[in-house]
Amino acid sequence: MRTVFYISDGTAITSEVFGHALLSLFPMQFQHRTISFVETVEKAQATKALINKVCSQNGEPALVFHTFVNPEVREIIDSCDGVIYNFLEHFVKPLEQELQITACPKAHRTHSINKNSYDNRIDAVNYALANDDGSSITNFEQADVILIGVSRSGKTPSSLYLAMQYGVKVANYPFTDDDMENLSLPAFLKEHKKKLFGLTIDPQRLIDIREGRLAHSQYASARQCRMEVREVEKLYKQEKIPFINTTKLSVEEIAAKVLSQTGLQRYKY
Amino acid sequence: MRTVFYISDGTAITSEVFGHALLSLFPMQFQHRTISFVETVEKAQATKALINKVCSQNGEPALVFHTFVNPEVREIIDSCDGVIYNFLEHFVKPLEQELQITACPKAHRTHSINKNSYDNRIDAVNYALANDDGSSITNFEQADVILIGVSRSGKTPSSLYLAMQYGVKVANYPFTDDDMENLSLPAFLKEHKKKLFGLTIDPQRLIDIREGRLAHSQYASARQCRMEVREVEKLYKQEKIPFINTTKLSVEEIAAKVLSQTGLQRYKY
Repeated sequence: MRTVFYISDGTAITSEVFGHALLSLFPMQFQHRTISFVETVEKAQATKALINKVCSQNGEPALVFHTFVNPEVREIIDSCDGVIYNFLEHFVKPLEQELQITACPKAHRTHSINKNSYDNRIDAVNYALANDDGSSITNFEQADVILIGVSRSGKTPSSLYLAMQYGVKVANYPFTDDDMENLSLPAFLKEHKKKLFGLTIDPQRLIDIREGRLAHSQYASARQCRMEVREVEKLYKQEKIPFINTTKLSVEEIAAKVLSQTGLQRYKY
Repeated sequence: MRTVFYISDGTAITSEVFGHALLSLFPMQFQHRTISFVETVEKAQATKALINKVCSQNGEPALVFHTFVNPEVREIIDSCDGVIYNFLEHFVKPLEQELQITACPKAHRTHSINKNSYDNRIDAVNYALANDDGSSITNFEQADVILIGVSRSGKTPSSLYLAMQYGVKVANYPFTDDDMENLSLPAFLKEHKKKLFGLTIDPQRLIDIREGRLAHSQYASARQCRMEVREVEKLYKQEKIPFINTTKLSVEEIAAKVLSQTGLQRYKY
């Protein structure tokens, strides 16, 4: 199996995203290795030695995705036995021409603290935790969006992802069995109706997830799951609340759809 | 201000990372706009019209970062008035040659559900939530790593980030004022000593964060913050627990350092 290295003087997140996006186009298995914080000549040399050892053991060159801007470290990595893919070098010159400004390598710290947005993100994570699962219904004023749905339809991970990645303040509220008879919007949600965004899920997937948590319970029964999903979807339609089915979606996709459909601003930049 | 578009037929996360990494090299401000799920010819045409309108209004071409693999949609976006940056096209051919296999555009869904790893990530998020802030000290057996530190040193966001992005199971345990007299490792931590990873923080930053939460409290006082930081750092050194100072680190950097220093496997792929 081909070994792939993702290397950077920072977190290596950019190298990983860059490499994964490309390798996902190839129907093959790879052995992945990430080496972050290669900030010194010594660490670069050790990394080069490791790559060379892997190339020699495997009898084929490793693929090396990196984003170094420090020329000293970069030259060491570039001289290894692996095949180098560095997307920065292809795009920096054209961008310099278009923007009429010289790139400034020292600014290259994509995933470090950005004063303007970082506290927003941490505040949003704390907000999501404090307003998870209907634990507080008095702070909805501050929410950018309120995710609603039955238990285990994806509200909590989606709220946390939106907060962590984009600094969006997301509360979430679960409809439980107690709400199901004559399901309607409680007053504390109704007054924030424009912020509501519904999640739904295929009943069979919901059964599987709930069985994993509370096997053989009424909570996980086919009848209960089907009824809950039917009732919330009816409510979303009646109240004209936008909603998506999360069955086949990752948290990344759910988050992107919520942002796209609500037109919410992202605070990451 | 130059407008930048990040466009994709999926979440557009890859386009954003790609564009941000490049633009972070330029000491300028940009106006950012993300357009996700451009999956149809109609949506591509609407997107092109929007880009053209922005270019015309601004009197300068927008920058357009995209990663389309569907040729029909891609040609429409490529024909807009913006300047196109598409990193896939530069690297697909060289990779095809190196791997001796043809790229398979349909597989391009970097941020969708990957059966093998996705459930791991959601399980890890649930684990992090259930084992946050010392709320449970009986599940440490299952932890990949246990973050320890004083209150507000970054344990919770870091735990959630490691879980969400990498599927790593992280518990965290706070040392509180009650622990401070003759601070030592409690037995339930001592038996998992190899999993312990310490966070520390500069006292002044800790004071600022705690003041934001509980102004004028003993909890936020300079004396208290300095004492707690001094005591935990002494403990880390005595017990030879690896630790990092989070004062100037983002959650991405904390996570990358924890992974790098513990040698933990990432489950994302």
